[in-house]
Amino acid sequence: MTRLTKHLLTLSAAAGFGLASIGTAFSAESLEDVMKRRGLTEKDILAAAKTYTPTGGRDEFVVFSSGGQSGQLIVYGIPSMRILKYVAVFTPEPWQGYGFDDESKAVLAQGKINGTEINYGDTHHPAISETNGEYDGEWLFINDKANPRIAVVDLKDFETKQIVVNPIMKSEHGGAFVTPNTEYVIEATQYAGPFSNDFVPLSKFNDEYRGAVTYWKFDREAGRIDPAQSFSVELPPYSQDLSDAGKLVSDGWSFTNSFCTERYVGGIERGRPPFEAGCSQKDTDFLHMINWKKAAELVAAGKATKINDHDVIMMDTAVAEGILFLIPEPKSPHGVDVSPDGKYIIVSGKLDTHASVYSFEKMKALIDAKDFAGTDPYGIPILDLKKSLHTQLQVGLGPLHTQYDSKPCVVYTSIYVDSQVTKWDYCEGKVLDKISVHYNIGHLMSMEGDSVSPKGKYLVSLNKLAIDRFNPVGPLHPQNHQLIDISGDKMELLYDMPLPLGEPHYAVAISADKLKPKVRYKSGWDSRTDQRSPHRTLPGRERTEVVDGVTHIYGTLIRSHITPEIIEVEEGSTVSLHFTNVERAEDETHGFAIRGFDINLSAEPGKTVSATFKAEKPGVYPYYCTEFCSALHLEMQGYLLVTPKGYTAEGVALQEGQTYTEEDYTKQVETVNATQAVIDSVVQYITARNFKDFPPVVAMVEDATDQLNFAEEAKTKTEEFAAAKDWQNATLWAQQWFQYQVKAADIGLRAKTYLDQNGAKVVNQ
Amino acid sequence: MTRLTKHLLTLSAAAGFGLASIGTAFSAESLEDVMKRRGLTEKDILAAAKTYTPTGGRDEFVVFSSGGQSGQLIVYGIPSMRILKYVAVFTPEPWQGYGFDDESKAVLAQGKINGTEINYGDTHHPAISETNGEYDGEWLFINDKANPRIAVVDLKDFETKQIVVNPIMKSEHGGAFVTPNTEYVIEATQYAGPFSNDFVPLSKFNDEYRGAVTYWKFDREAGRIDPAQSFSVELPPYSQDLSDAGKLVSDGWSFTNSFCTERYVGGIERGRPPFEAGCSQKDTDFLHMINWKKAAELVAAGKATKINDHDVIMMDTAVAEGILFLIPEPKSPHGVDVSPDGKYIIVSGKLDTHASVYSFEKMKALIDAKDFAGTDPYGIPILDLKKSLHTQLQVGLGPLHTQYDSKPCVVYTSIYVDSQVTKWDYCEGKVLDKISVHYNIGHLMSMEGDSVSPKGKYLVSLNKLAIDRFNPVGPLHPQNHQLIDISGDKMELLYDMPLPLGEPHYAVAISADKLKPKVRYKSGWDSRTDQRSPHRTLPGRERTEVVDGVTHIYGTLIRSHITPEIIEVEEGSTVSLHFTNVERAEDETHGFAIRGFDINLSAEPGKTVSATFKAEKPGVYPYYCTEFCSALHLEMQGYLLVTPKGYTAEGVALQEGQTYTEEDYTKQVETVNATQAVIDSVVQYITARNFKDFPPVVAMVEDATDQLNFAEEAKTKTEEFAAAKDWQNATLWAQQWFQYQVKAADIGLRAKTYLDQNGAKVVNQ
Repeated sequence: MTRLTKHLLTLSAAAGFGLASIGTAFSAESLEDVMKRRGLTEKDILAAAKTYTPTGGRDEFVVFSSGGQSGQLIVYGIPSMRILKYVAVFTPEPWQGYGFDDESKAVLAQGKINGTEINYGDTHHPAISETNGEYDGEWLFINDKANPRIAVVDLKDFETKQIVVNPIMKSEHGGAFVTPNTEYVIEATQYAGPFSNDFVPLSKFNDEYRGAVTYWKFDREAGRIDPAQSFSVELPPYSQDLSDAGKLVSDGWSFTNSFCTERYVGGIERGRPPFEAGCSQKDTDFLHMINWKKAAELVAAGKATKINDHDVIMMDTAVAEGILFLIPEPKSPHGVDVSPDGKYIIVSGKLDTHASVYSFEKMKALIDAKDFAGTDPYGIPILDLKKSLHTQLQVGLGPLHTQYDSKPCVVYTSIYVDSQVTKWDYCEGKVLDKISVHYNIGHLMSMEGDSVSPKGKYLVSLNKLAIDRFNPVGPLHPQNHQLIDISGDKMELLYDMPLPLGEPHYAVAISADKLKPKVRYKSGWDSRTDQRSPHRTLPGRERTEVVDGVTHIYGTLIRSHITPEIIEVEEGSTVSLHFTNVERAEDETHGFAIRGFDINLSAEPGKTVSATFKAEKPGVYPYYCTEFCSALHLEMQGYLLVTPKGYTAEGVALQEGQTYTEEDYTKQVETVNATQAVIDSVVQYITARNFKDFPPVVAMVEDATDQLNFAEEAKTKTEEFAAAKDWQNATLWAQQWFQYQVKAADIGLRAKTYLDQNGAKVVNQ
Repeated sequence: MTRLTKHLLTLSAAAGFGLASIGTAFSAESLEDVMKRRGLTEKDILAAAKTYTPTGGRDEFVVFSSGGQSGQLIVYGIPSMRILKYVAVFTPEPWQGYGFDDESKAVLAQGKINGTEINYGDTHHPAISETNGEYDGEWLFINDKANPRIAVVDLKDFETKQIVVNPIMKSEHGGAFVTPNTEYVIEATQYAGPFSNDFVPLSKFNDEYRGAVTYWKFDREAGRIDPAQSFSVELPPYSQDLSDAGKLVSDGWSFTNSFCTERYVGGIERGRPPFEAGCSQKDTDFLHMINWKKAAELVAAGKATKINDHDVIMMDTAVAEGILFLIPEPKSPHGVDVSPDGKYIIVSGKLDTHASVYSFEKMKALIDAKDFAGTDPYGIPILDLKKSLHTQLQVGLGPLHTQYDSKPCVVYTSIYVDSQVTKWDYCEGKVLDKISVHYNIGHLMSMEGDSVSPKGKYLVSLNKLAIDRFNPVGPLHPQNHQLIDISGDKMELLYDMPLPLGEPHYAVAISADKLKPKVRYKSGWDSRTDQRSPHRTLPGRERTEVVDGVTHIYGTLIRSHITPEIIEVEEGSTVSLHFTNVERAEDETHGFAIRGFDINLSAEPGKTVSATFKAEKPGVYPYYCTEFCSALHLEMQGYLLVTPKGYTAEGVALQEGQTYTEEDYTKQVETVNATQAVIDSVVQYITARNFKDFPPVVAMVEDATDQLNFAEEAKTKTEEFAAAKDWQNATLWAQQWFQYQVKAADIGLRAKTYLDQNGAKVVNQ
């Protein structure tokens, strides 16, 4: 210990804290040397300069990408293309404690299908909440294609708060999309099914299988979807696909495309041509156009039908009330995208070479004039394709999805079969540029490209195949998102980014400065209900209570001990653990793992988490903190002891492995005193500088003050035991006092380094 | 369709395929402009040049990092620091189908504790298999601290093949480490517990709680750990920590450090000082030294005791036979690292400022001379610290882990409290350089630094806190791995890499060229048992069989249909799905998701996967492929119909949504013929060039040939139906014929682009 204290003394005396190596500008190798060694071109260096983000740097945009069948949400930065977080949404994930603590299990349980727990999702389309058509960075919605569901993620803490199950669909794809003020979250069917949960034979496909669009009401104040205020519009069994909400002039309308309007049912095993043959026979499918504002009024007026306790506007009502129309669109489209001004809607078909630009003004005029080209087999009016079009342009083979630039009239369309992106002018109808991508691009995404004010600058190509792009990692390949610079006239490829988990389908990007996440929770917070937890426990109030046969353990977590350190329950007990992280410092998360019960908790600063389980077998179950939190993190441990039924302790005291004398105590106190001198000098160093100008340092000082307060408490105990000449306890508490000092010193050194590296000035010597 | 064909014709006629933008060297913005705009220094540009990896480029090293409490393994590249894959190990992960298909569920089931399914792990230390002390890139082993287990990952396909549960430990930490020829995988206890699974009170801690080191026998031919040939050595309850195997001169020995040799038991809730106080009181802990070769001989000679059906060499036997020794080591060490030549062992203690370099030669001489400083309370001989030391050096506050450079005598030690890396010379005992890291570094890792021939070049700092390093993502922060250039005299920080999921503890890096993963499985392969699956299904052999009351569906997956497309079973049936991906093309994975049964499968080319479930409720359950696999991927769908008990079909045929005439048929055949002309011209373009010099193009040609063979089969069906004047089926099969042509054309275009971009030459015009 004296060695450690001597070291602290040395450090506090030095000006630079061993930072001599910082500031050395260049190593022996020059830029030219590196380019030659690594085979880089000047173009590569320019791309590197445009994407490389030095230590502590921030990305300009934050991307939220669906994680596909991983059931998660992927968060990464642009232009660095570094993945910042995987947010667990539909799939349990132990690092986040998601699906392992009682609070998040309750969220996952909302997503049961017919009572069955579903522990994955096939996430496709994330949508950020909007205010007046602008991304506002508050909420994110994402769908599950496999088990039609929508999840709500809070962008204040990047946690999943709610899962709603679609009450009538059996499959979906076209979610989530939001209306311009996030009044509704839009979700559209994919594969048709009966609205009931009963068996209906495929021979009744045309008559009883149905598609739909659901409008989920979002209650922004509650931060939750309100199923009771949500409704759907019944649609034909046309394999509805993606959607988009109108904006500005087209606000109040939503658009949903489709494929397989042939209503073909395959059956290759019985000699029928497969779905892929029968679903690609016609030249066009249908774009659905729905007046959702009027639909909401119809529901309010009682014109909806309750199906599975959910309001559905049936097709005949929708037709009679004039809220539902169809327009032919190129075959097998994927993506319908409303222009920032709301005037145009761009659709392209994977089995065509054209992008079609529809004019909302023309479509509206046709509707107002009741100028229809006919009706479909379900009586829905069809608008004439040519009369609805602004223009149509050949953009490449397999055009799939279009995104808007900040530059007027400029858009980008992903070209699946050609593996290209086409840049074109949708006002004039002319191709501006093309760039090859690797390989088979699906969606593409521009910065805030779905909003009323796209930010331009970058485009991401979400490719469906990577093949040979990266170091091989076995038969299952990563995906590849390619970053493209769209600031100039020519598109320039900047970066290939492997996606290591899941197959993203679509992504949205928001200006980083619009996100304002928290770094800690209010004390004793249940983050899943966003309320103070009934199990919040303050330091010193740790206790065990048996209520209705359940043994509740109310505990706390702090650097670096778990209170309680020993839990003893009888075989067969139901145990409910509740831990509150009583830290305030940023990034001071504690975890809790215990052998054999499939429990792993993550408690960020302020959070209260619970785990309830049955202790069925007598035995010894060590537990510990799973997040490295201090130099004595490994010592943040404890034991759950499950005693056999009827066991009574033998009354034998704990054997001490080591005994301590007055001499040990005196030595320990000397160390403590020397350490205090060091801390005082570090404090002096910091407070002599303008540390209040550096918020991270202010936070560190606050944290160090907490640690020194704990040190004071340990000091009191030390002195009490010393007064009673209990050298065993006096020595151990003196050690604990010292450990709090070390934690304070650790933070102090970090603060000092920060001040040195960020040009702090001496203010009051 | 004719539009599509026209486009194909245009493309095949053009030389450049719209690649005009490739080859344009620079955009308007110069390097200086970019540096100014993004605030980059020359040092930043050099770091960018050292890490940026252009499209298609390969990383020099591949890192395998533990995923901490995510229970996964993280694979990333150096120097690009791009994450290539998360490999599911202890935690179910749906993208990989891990824990969602029957085959991988069987692997996870091996890891049950007391019959309880454990769906996470706390992975800490990955180890790559070695041959003669060199990483050989064949296998990887990783531990679970929480529920003492070891997993075996196959680096041929990056899949988890086996989980073994430690038969005597209740907690572990010091695994996995391998002996120089991977004879054994070493696993050491962390928190002591009774070897039995019974309750033992803490009052018997010193007498009945125990640590151990387990030597798991690895059967390289089987590619699995053989528990029957594995054994353990009983150790005192000293909180054993990390281990390392001796090499070359020290081969046959292994070294394990420890903390809390005070054998302190906390209990802060009952007024006792916490573990962290009682476990940090002494100045030293014990390094354990075990002769594992001799231990294996003792087991073979029957000198082990069977505990829980596992061979354990008890402490008294170990002492009597001279295979177990202790040496004092600095307090609370974390990491024991044997030098590449096997002569030295470096240990440092988190609560000290020194690194200690032990001399194996001196230790061995003391043992041979029976020159002991005493024995511990369990009778284990203790070697004198000073007599065992080569040197000791002050390296900083909180030294934690040491890694070796390729340069002789050069090592790097992570300094936790100072948040630095110290570079020093362990032969001469002098500090060479220091660099600050952000923040609180845990382990660090050099390239193949654990092997007999470290590769130098790069060092990764695995920091425990990120705090302010990245764009904020809520209270739970990513981790931060910092890449450091160690090629010169001064260490240079190159890159900050966020870890988006899990808290890595330790990582290993291997030269990328040593990894030889496969891109496909043998036909009908069960990847978890590494045998041909009994459920392998060949195209055309799809069928349903009811055996012992279970309905087995033998199906296939191919671009882009699932066979069967309709599955009908009666309510209450147990259904066992078996799908074989019959593709050969790299990266042509198909997935399978179905509503409501928590089933999500991933079938890479060649793989057979199964899912068994009970169809309890009548209803309609759509299923589909989850990996975007062709332009008609969305049409790769089907329906599981669960009929009510006793249901009999009404004999009503499927209603066709669309009917086709001879005219439709004729039109479709025209399209097919035009498309064939296009394909012929693409084939001509490719074969006129030296495409055989490009292996990826050879693979594409093989895949395109497969598609054209399928087209031939569809053509045959088309012509049969046309001959019978069945225009409905003739038209649909002609469409399917066309779809295979489109797939072939898609691949052909990719091949053509590849040849254009990679300088292919005309060889035979």
